[in-house]
Amino acid sequence: MALTRGLTRMGLGDVGSNERFVKLAREYGFQAVDLNDVLGWVEAEGKETALAVLAETGVAIGSIGLPVEWRSTEERFRSDLTKLAATAAAAAELGCTRCCTYVLPATDLNAAHFMALATRRLRTCADILGAYGIRFGLEYVGPHHLRTRWANPFVWTLDQTNDWIDAIGAPNVGLLLDSYHWYTTGQTADELAALRADQIVHVHINDAPDVPVEEALDNGRLYPGEGVIDLPAFLQALQRTGYSGPISQEILTQSPPTAPAEELLSRSKAGFDKVFAAAGL
Amino acid sequence: MALTRGLTRMGLGDVGSNERFVKLAREYGFQAVDLNDVLGWVEAEGKETALAVLAETGVAIGSIGLPVEWRSTEERFRSDLTKLAATAAAAAELGCTRCCTYVLPATDLNAAHFMALATRRLRTCADILGAYGIRFGLEYVGPHHLRTRWANPFVWTLDQTNDWIDAIGAPNVGLLLDSYHWYTTGQTADELAALRADQIVHVHINDAPDVPVEEALDNGRLYPGEGVIDLPAFLQALQRTGYSGPISQEILTQSPPTAPAEELLSRSKAGFDKVFAAAGL
Amino acid sequence: MALTRGLTRMGLGDVGSNERFVKLAREYGFQAVDLNDVLGWVEAEGKETALAVLAETGVAIGSIGLPVEWRSTEERFRSDLTKLAATAAAAAELGCTRCCTYVLPATDLNAAHFMALATRRLRTCADILGAYGIRFGLEYVGPHHLRTRWANPFVWTLDQTNDWIDAIGAPNVGLLLDSYHWYTTGQTADELAALRADQIVHVHINDAPDVPVEEALDNGRLYPGEGVIDLPAFLQALQRTGYSGPISQEILTQSPPTAPAEELLSRSKAGFDKVFAAAGL
Amino acid sequence: MALTRGLTRMGLGDVGSNERFVKLAREYGFQAVDLNDVLGWVEAEGKETALAVLAETGVAIGSIGLPVEWRSTEERFRSDLTKLAATAAAAAELGCTRCCTYVLPATDLNAAHFMALATRRLRTCADILGAYGIRFGLEYVGPHHLRTRWANPFVWTLDQTNDWIDAIGAPNVGLLLDSYHWYTTGQTADELAALRADQIVHVHINDAPDVPVEEALDNGRLYPGEGVIDLPAFLQALQRTGYSGPISQEILTQSPPTAPAEELLSRSKAGFDKVFAAAGL
Repeated sequence: MALTRGLTRMGLGDVGSNERFVKLAREYGFQAVDLNDVLGWVEAEGKETALAVLAETGVAIGSIGLPVEWRSTEERFRSDLTKLAATAAAAAELGCTRCCTYVLPATDLNAAHFMALATRRLRTCADILGAYGIRFGLEYVGPHHLRTRWANPFVWTLDQTNDWIDAIGAPNVGLLLDSYHWYTTGQTADELAALRADQIVHVHINDAPDVPVEEALDNGRLYPGEGVIDLPAFLQALQRTGYSGPISQEILTQSPPTAPAEELLSRSKAGFDKVFAAAGL
Repeated sequence: MALTRGLTRMGLGDVGSNERFVKLAREYGFQAVDLNDVLGWVEAEGKETALAVLAETGVAIGSIGLPVEWRSTEERFRSDLTKLAATAAAAAELGCTRCCTYVLPATDLNAAHFMALATRRLRTCADILGAYGIRFGLEYVGPHHLRTRWANPFVWTLDQTNDWIDAIGAPNVGLLLDSYHWYTTGQTADELAALRADQIVHVHINDAPDVPVEEALDNGRLYPGEGVIDLPAFLQALQRTGYSGPISQEILTQSPPTAPAEELLSRSKAGFDKVFAAAGL
Repeated sequence: MALTRGLTRMGLGDVGSNERFVKLAREYGFQAVDLNDVLGWVEAEGKETALAVLAETGVAIGSIGLPVEWRSTEERFRSDLTKLAATAAAAAELGCTRCCTYVLPATDLNAAHFMALATRRLRTCADILGAYGIRFGLEYVGPHHLRTRWANPFVWTLDQTNDWIDAIGAPNVGLLLDSYHWYTTGQTADELAALRADQIVHVHINDAPDVPVEEALDNGRLYPGEGVIDLPAFLQALQRTGYSGPISQEILTQSPPTAPAEELLSRSKAGFDKVFAAAGL
Repeated sequence: MALTRGLTRMGLGDVGSNERFVKLAREYGFQAVDLNDVLGWVEAEGKETALAVLAETGVAIGSIGLPVEWRSTEERFRSDLTKLAATAAAAAELGCTRCCTYVLPATDLNAAHFMALATRRLRTCADILGAYGIRFGLEYVGPHHLRTRWANPFVWTLDQTNDWIDAIGAPNVGLLLDSYHWYTTGQTADELAALRADQIVHVHINDAPDVPVEEALDNGRLYPGEGVIDLPAFLQALQRTGYSGPISQEILTQSPPTAPAEELLSRSKAGFDKVFAAAGL
């Protein structure tokens, strides 16, 4: 039981195919990658090939992204939903037990009505994922500028998200925690540490620039250890909850980095080395 | 299978004890009464006495009010919830199969967060009521002045309420329809008639004064047939859905009527006679 | 609101493609057909073509069969489940609002454990169907010989099935009633009439040979009106519940009939004419 | 996060009032007690008094028993259910987060039908408990003699119970593990260690006499460390899951022990000292 190091494709430039991404992750000391197209991988290369790559490298799939747009029309939701079970089946076959989606902090719709629609739609997604042994993580999004980007406030705090998870009411729904949202919503380490491990499905780790917290942009993230977030405290708080699983970097930037993937991976590794060491992990 | 005539205490002045209320209802040709204190009645008079009054008069209990405040704090909700099962048990023993609550169209809380809290709380109520064979009706509230009475819009239309019922996701939750809210939300008879009977738990009937619809006050209601709502069309639309059950008057006024109960009951009877006849019922 | 006449392919010999089946149904006075391959139809012919055939004939799709085997292994269930959402989407696009599955009255598995597995699996199916506005009907199966065909008794009565539906707990699950199972489980018309309309998702109609009821075989069914079941009483009881929807014939026989489809359809029509007339419909 | 030492009243003779029980527990080095009458305690002594006793001793309430008989008639269930919310409220006010019930391995009812009834009833209980932040543990019961004590087999293994928990489908339902049932169902330590911590609500610890496992009687239990169960392996397996919470002794015997409570508590303490030390805890 431990916190493991994970990657998303965000912030790594072009890491190529899933196979190359997995092998690079391994090379730079990461134990998990988050993928968005497991079904495509399995359909194109075959389950056995994908499993062999994972087995050979010892890298796990940390999480898949939800292939269903639940924030738009009912038609779009119904159409996307047709592919969820096959995606979940492919992920489960590759040993993945997490699927995540993010929640924007504001909406142009009537906020209460949208909450009702979203609750029903996400419960349906959770039920399908649950049939394949996959847990479903909701990521609240903290940056201040997004809270007023659309007409009506939605939810963006840990407590609100936990209340929403209770409203959804499915046993396999929990939190995707991101240090960037922890920081931009002004939470303490103790608030984080008060969670039960089973409330946490997945974790993202990112750093923030040295600007007033109200000005930290969602796509202005830094590599772990390069900014002002107290990431050792974040990691120690997670450790205190008993959470065991991947901590995945997801560097959203205004434009994609242009450096070679190897350079960016090396930088990421250095960041993880720094903050994990500072946390005593 | 038929639409039956029902009463609430609202608009009748002082009709006394539940026993007197039931007997008066019978005397003026009503087949159902909505009660708010069935548990008190059973505890004070005994189940057998209450059942005897109902059997002797042939009057049914149309619905009980929800004895749980779900719009306030979690502490209040938890405290009130301790009495729900006993209330539901008493209602079920008296043959009642409906419990209802109303939904204000605005809130001072974050609307999305409150929707999440309310969804979870009402599902818990529904589950408890369901254990006693009781269905749970949600009444959306249409008057325009209430939509801006609190800071943030909540939900107040038929479609929004149906979406919320889907979000709650319990098999025994449906609509309490009120002609006053049907009128103040500008719905057509065809929209009403498009409902399935099983979506409707209970019905209220009231009339509105001849003022612009935007100015119709929630507590400015008239007796059926004394105002401008097309109540025959309302009743015919309900008939088309296949709904079978009580249609209960609930005259909310700025100050309680001071006339004797018998006079108010007589007036109510005349109103029902008029609109039921006009509807061909 | 009415009981309409429906057909399944069982007992009709070779009625050809879905298009031909629909047109024959229309020709012989039927208003609904149950189909098992709507997704295949839509994929092969296109949604517009299928919709045009239905619109031109005025025939509705009464129900689709559940394309998921929930009685076998978890692997099989997970694999089948990947196609349910797409099937439900296709059915919904063609206006179908019902999906049904049957329940065998005995099992070789531990009955309690199988009930737990089946409850969870069918709830997942119900949730997916519900996302497309489709209700899910469970058909209990009455013939005595099947109750001992496998080692352990499961459930086979109306009351047990209703209790199971409550255990599944999804708002869109109800009964598929079949006159053959009504007859072989020895129920009265009053027991049937005591159901609420919303408890009934779909109805099958079949007749039984003049043998002791314990000897009526599941695949020994007769066309309506050719046997000993009091089908007028069955139809009148359904009418009393307020049920509105198709009544579909499903003639299971030891070997498929060899007569031309037109002859079998004509015979079916005569049977419906007889029992519907006797029921006063 | 640690495994703590807990007591039930079973096996301790007369430990008197809850207050005395709590103080004795403290005196003999236990950190938790399971209570069955928290509502009575709060009603008789007041919440503040009870809280003071707990605060003063540092002893927690490990679990309460479910005050609802769900194995009998619907009438009994409905009647008992009226007291559950108040009991849960009292438990929550005293800081308790667990409620448990046991599952007999056989039944005189149709096993599948009873499973359906029990699934629905326990889900209702779980929903009410969940409103007060209380988790609900189901204890499967392993002794062989009970499997044939009633006519039809029900469920009695870890895997079956987990499948049932999935069928119940509430987020706050999990396992009450008991070393006696772990032993009598022949499970390995690795099977136990494969559980996720969040699947475990509560744990009982007991020892078994040196008889063939098939002859170990449910009410023939020994104090920890006095019998043949590999309790260090049991505790280590729990530790590996990440479970954090009480391990409570529950010595069911054919007749209650007659020795003074202090002697029995001392014996219990010695047993815990022995097996916790052997487990390296």
